[in-house]
Amino acid sequence: MANSTISMTNVLEQPAARTTAPRTAIAGIGGYAGGELARLLLHHPRLRGNAPTLLGRAGEPESTSLHYLEDIHPQLAVAGDQHAHPILPFSWNRITDTGTEVLFLATPHEQSREWVPQAIERGIKVIDLSGAWRLQHHTNRAVYKLKDANADHAAQLQQEAVYGCPELHRDEIRNARLVANPGCYATSILLALAPLLQAELVDLEHGIICDAKSGVSGAGKAPTAKTHFMHAADNLSAYAVFGHRHTGELLEQLHITSDQIQFTPHLLPIPRGILSTIYLRLKTKTEAAAITTVLQNFYQHSPLVRLRNTPHLPEIQHIVRTNFCDLGFALAADGNRLILVSCLDNLLKGASGQAVQNLNLMCGWNEEEGLL
Amino acid sequence: MANSTISMTNVLEQPAARTTAPRTAIAGIGGYAGGELARLLLHHPRLRGNAPTLLGRAGEPESTSLHYLEDIHPQLAVAGDQHAHPILPFSWNRITDTGTEVLFLATPHEQSREWVPQAIERGIKVIDLSGAWRLQHHTNRAVYKLKDANADHAAQLQQEAVYGCPELHRDEIRNARLVANPGCYATSILLALAPLLQAELVDLEHGIICDAKSGVSGAGKAPTAKTHFMHAADNLSAYAVFGHRHTGELLEQLHITSDQIQFTPHLLPIPRGILSTIYLRLKTKTEAAAITTVLQNFYQHSPLVRLRNTPHLPEIQHIVRTNFCDLGFALAADGNRLILVSCLDNLLKGASGQAVQNLNLMCGWNEEEGLL
Amino acid sequence: MANSTISMTNVLEQPAARTTAPRTAIAGIGGYAGGELARLLLHHPRLRGNAPTLLGRAGEPESTSLHYLEDIHPQLAVAGDQHAHPILPFSWNRITDTGTEVLFLATPHEQSREWVPQAIERGIKVIDLSGAWRLQHHTNRAVYKLKDANADHAAQLQQEAVYGCPELHRDEIRNARLVANPGCYATSILLALAPLLQAELVDLEHGIICDAKSGVSGAGKAPTAKTHFMHAADNLSAYAVFGHRHTGELLEQLHITSDQIQFTPHLLPIPRGILSTIYLRLKTKTEAAAITTVLQNFYQHSPLVRLRNTPHLPEIQHIVRTNFCDLGFALAADGNRLILVSCLDNLLKGASGQAVQNLNLMCGWNEEEGLL
Amino acid sequence: MANSTISMTNVLEQPAARTTAPRTAIAGIGGYAGGELARLLLHHPRLRGNAPTLLGRAGEPESTSLHYLEDIHPQLAVAGDQHAHPILPFSWNRITDTGTEVLFLATPHEQSREWVPQAIERGIKVIDLSGAWRLQHHTNRAVYKLKDANADHAAQLQQEAVYGCPELHRDEIRNARLVANPGCYATSILLALAPLLQAELVDLEHGIICDAKSGVSGAGKAPTAKTHFMHAADNLSAYAVFGHRHTGELLEQLHITSDQIQFTPHLLPIPRGILSTIYLRLKTKTEAAAITTVLQNFYQHSPLVRLRNTPHLPEIQHIVRTNFCDLGFALAADGNRLILVSCLDNLLKGASGQAVQNLNLMCGWNEEEGLL
Repeated sequence: MANSTISMTNVLEQPAARTTAPRTAIAGIGGYAGGELARLLLHHPRLRGNAPTLLGRAGEPESTSLHYLEDIHPQLAVAGDQHAHPILPFSWNRITDTGTEVLFLATPHEQSREWVPQAIERGIKVIDLSGAWRLQHHTNRAVYKLKDANADHAAQLQQEAVYGCPELHRDEIRNARLVANPGCYATSILLALAPLLQAELVDLEHGIICDAKSGVSGAGKAPTAKTHFMHAADNLSAYAVFGHRHTGELLEQLHITSDQIQFTPHLLPIPRGILSTIYLRLKTKTEAAAITTVLQNFYQHSPLVRLRNTPHLPEIQHIVRTNFCDLGFALAADGNRLILVSCLDNLLKGASGQAVQNLNLMCGWNEEEGLL
Repeated sequence: MANSTISMTNVLEQPAARTTAPRTAIAGIGGYAGGELARLLLHHPRLRGNAPTLLGRAGEPESTSLHYLEDIHPQLAVAGDQHAHPILPFSWNRITDTGTEVLFLATPHEQSREWVPQAIERGIKVIDLSGAWRLQHHTNRAVYKLKDANADHAAQLQQEAVYGCPELHRDEIRNARLVANPGCYATSILLALAPLLQAELVDLEHGIICDAKSGVSGAGKAPTAKTHFMHAADNLSAYAVFGHRHTGELLEQLHITSDQIQFTPHLLPIPRGILSTIYLRLKTKTEAAAITTVLQNFYQHSPLVRLRNTPHLPEIQHIVRTNFCDLGFALAADGNRLILVSCLDNLLKGASGQAVQNLNLMCGWNEEEGLL
Repeated sequence: MANSTISMTNVLEQPAARTTAPRTAIAGIGGYAGGELARLLLHHPRLRGNAPTLLGRAGEPESTSLHYLEDIHPQLAVAGDQHAHPILPFSWNRITDTGTEVLFLATPHEQSREWVPQAIERGIKVIDLSGAWRLQHHTNRAVYKLKDANADHAAQLQQEAVYGCPELHRDEIRNARLVANPGCYATSILLALAPLLQAELVDLEHGIICDAKSGVSGAGKAPTAKTHFMHAADNLSAYAVFGHRHTGELLEQLHITSDQIQFTPHLLPIPRGILSTIYLRLKTKTEAAAITTVLQNFYQHSPLVRLRNTPHLPEIQHIVRTNFCDLGFALAADGNRLILVSCLDNLLKGASGQAVQNLNLMCGWNEEEGLL
Repeated sequence: MANSTISMTNVLEQPAARTTAPRTAIAGIGGYAGGELARLLLHHPRLRGNAPTLLGRAGEPESTSLHYLEDIHPQLAVAGDQHAHPILPFSWNRITDTGTEVLFLATPHEQSREWVPQAIERGIKVIDLSGAWRLQHHTNRAVYKLKDANADHAAQLQQEAVYGCPELHRDEIRNARLVANPGCYATSILLALAPLLQAELVDLEHGIICDAKSGVSGAGKAPTAKTHFMHAADNLSAYAVFGHRHTGELLEQLHITSDQIQFTPHLLPIPRGILSTIYLRLKTKTEAAAITTVLQNFYQHSPLVRLRNTPHLPEIQHIVRTNFCDLGFALAADGNRLILVSCLDNLLKGASGQAVQNLNLMCGWNEEEGLL
């Protein structure tokens, strides 16, 4: 298992940067993450003249599945050409014919679980945005009810899969064949907690409370009673209490147990953005300056994590449509009770932006290229 | 046809008021209009201790269709009893057994077209919130693609149907067996234009432009791509341009032709409320005071229409969750170009509130009872 | 001190109900709470034909301070009369001349601290919506920086002041001369925690976390950078971390210490509504049914508190524009970690609705009259 | 007067492109347009390593006016340096010392009217985002109540000023010393109407109706009753009816008279974006394909104007946070009544994006550089 410990290599030891860009493809272009991924790759300075292959769903007959990116995501249209970016039906022949070296999967987790082994077999690296490959322990993975065609092969790949949080696993990502891109909630909470846990400041006996709030895009593009404007607007609701499936990522990445952390998501009446308010106790009375130092040191080489100065705390507005995660904190006068606030855009740093950050690392480029 | 001319009886000649309240029933309790109707009737001062019978969809087996109002519309729950208001499966036996005298239909128009003749046959009066019975001319009605089991009977009922806009047809409504409750957009536009057309001030040759904007509840409760929060929020879009089916109501009620009026709806990123901006030219140069007088006279006995004083214009915020229609206007310095602004809550004055206003008239009560 | 213990009289021992309604007055009609209070009193079934006197700010010359309610709160206008509800300049003569028996203060806390003794001296009862009289301990009250003209008199009144949370202090409110209406956040948290604390189920050593979120109306009507649409919309931010002034109310009403509770407010991008997510540990392993029983018993005679059945949790949408507080909970599988969710409309159950509930109690009426 | 006729040079005759980028400065960095301008220039590929000088307000003492961009616009912060972009107090010495060649003014119109002559005297080109220099006719300009220190000089500069709508005045902009950047509403309406008026298709006798709707950022950053979240949210209101000051731009740029066009703005409950619905009659019965051809020809060399294919119409969501103007139309079955829909982001194509487009033209670069 490639990322059994938090490695957090903060010195940017980049392998030799690729001078030619890899051919890329995106499968699952129809959803929100797929659209953002297309936007980022189409404007990536290293990929000029080397647009990603855009792929639709599997199994659709050719005749019906020819669409254009601008039909599904009209905000991405270019002037003077409404058919600039065709979407092709998914097929392995098409992917290999175009010489794809890196395949992004913005597909449901069942689909990702099926396709990843098939891609790896063909020598294609994968950055998977689903939850299918993030979890090493099958008890955690059980929430996804995944089925494997070849259980042994899948188990092997699972061990090899790198959890694609660059701030925690930069080195492993650089050399990975399979990157499991983290969950949006998980990213926001991990980036806040990892530095303090690494510094062994947190009283884990007392337990950590993560009260997280997300915009509606996190619930996906399928129209449901929950995503109906009339339900989501002017509302706030808690959901998946004690049972959200991003919890497993927190446990595995932070090396803690389920009774040491509570994570409660809420649905915010906004399109995008996550704010996590995290409550914990420190082992000993601590100065605010010491917390600042821990965070600054941890993120000194991380261009996509911004620390907000006390008394300012991150706000969703400051990170929406950016690839940053903003962190801040407040420490009680007793020097013991700490509140961390973490904000990111669930579709960018929480999904597609982080996926491109992983691509950059895999190519030996600066991790923030195309993301500022 | 009961309402072939705008009758606008502004003197409140009420028939003898009922001293005992009628038994009522609502079919189609699950939608937004059904929920608002339940709320209004449950709190109506004349209906204390006489709650409406709440009915679900037709054809559901008894065992599955037993619900409670508080399951579907939790905002209507009462303290201490989560099963205060059962919803019964629709059946004519149940309706007649409970002695229903007035049946509200908050059902799709196909369903209303089917059920109205069956109710009238049983001696039950109907207030129908769908578009099924609003239009006298079959060319206008064609947009609804209605089918009648008994065409002759339907034609007869259609002639008898009263367009349920109290400010235009108060007298007919008092004595109606079948009230076709107006469309939300239509109500907002009719209430603005009727006084000026009656006063023959409008240059119809020039044509009238109605640029209307509605909150998302107008699009119904079914989750669709259009009602998804991610589409509706932070957005504005025109739709059904040159083809919205409320147009027929405008033509019939205002006695104008389709080349004399243009109606363009837009979807606003808010839950409820309609604002219509209406552009027209006057036949002759006119003073603002004369317009004010026309409106004041027309609505002097209308407790649910409020005129805003120049230079103030109606705003959606002032009418949301009220049963009022607010009207205002601005006249160009040339005394010729007039802009009318009309606002109402599409679920109340544009639907359920107007339905209760019609019930009040049919019972000989003050039309605003239970609506202020 | 009238309310040193949680008395929670749940049997409705009403004193003889007043048969004639008291004359009322509202000072501070311009704000959101003042507007909601006017709406509730104007429609109160016991106050028909007995409208409250509406009063503006002190010290304004007569000529400039004459306004109409419909100018400031156009949603409250009546048809056909744009000057139905005059607002008079504040003066004690005017208040006593109209025979005011109960004065509502929807004024800044400095103003309330000044006016309350003057009202009591004149034999006028007061329901004060500000924070000026809620706190018995001067250390808690220090956040308001209040000054008293007559410190002894103020101290005496402070002792006599009843914290106006009917579910906790019904009896004292019935006989009070001075009711200090609770803070909006405090109400939402107190109603969730009081039953469990009274039942001695909570592990106070571990500490309670209250992560609360409020709509923008809670920030008041003054236009500021924080209440600007561009800051509040599509955003979420924590504020007043470790320092919100409603904290004192929690400590005094729950008889706990500041290290036993943490309260963090957030600003939601919605007009109104509060949702509080409250995290605590139980002293011993407990069944969900036992929690339900504690809540049901505590609120069996409380018509404005609704319990949501597991697994449903309260949502803001269900309480907006109602006078209810909705409560729900989720218990971890370990039977130890409990999450309470509490929702109310900050302007109604969190302010003006609760104020009218207090008026009802003071008059010997059913506490929910005019509030359903 | 440089732009008395619509010149619409659609062939991209670019002068020799600058190989070294000009030094730029932005005055008025605190507002929304200033912030967006900073963002665009900081990321402009031609300006790498050549950041704009950021300037605050005039007249502030040095000690108080030193701020950082990230204090005012935290979304623009970079990781690891909270003081990356200092804001200097405005002074001509500072501007000339840094070698500024192009000065952007995102200042109130009075300020722009004062500073433009002072900049031009110093040989500095200006792109002014205010309304101060857009209007050639003093009757139109009167709405701004401008005062000139040197009336003759101002009159001369006014004549020289180029209206900075690239799609209409590309050639003049390339050689301009003073570009008056268009108003946001005006841009959205002009881009829709100019092609049809140039093609002489519009029945001007009948008159044009422009029903426009804008997000709240158009109302500026000053906290007012109108921009308060509680007023703007869940609302829609018409304002400045018959009197919005962008009207003059429409008259001058389209060479029509005030009785030939009516423009009514509305305030939308969203942060940004404008949608204009434009109603007109064609001189003769026309095919939709002919309209499409006129628009396509007009914009064939305009990379920032996108035409939406019938039946799709532009929506605000598709242009928010882009530098595009999207255009679409619907033609009535009579071939005579035309509805144009135009959408843009008021802060980008309606302000700062268009300003950078003008900079690109002035430098001989592709007009879309840094804007896609």
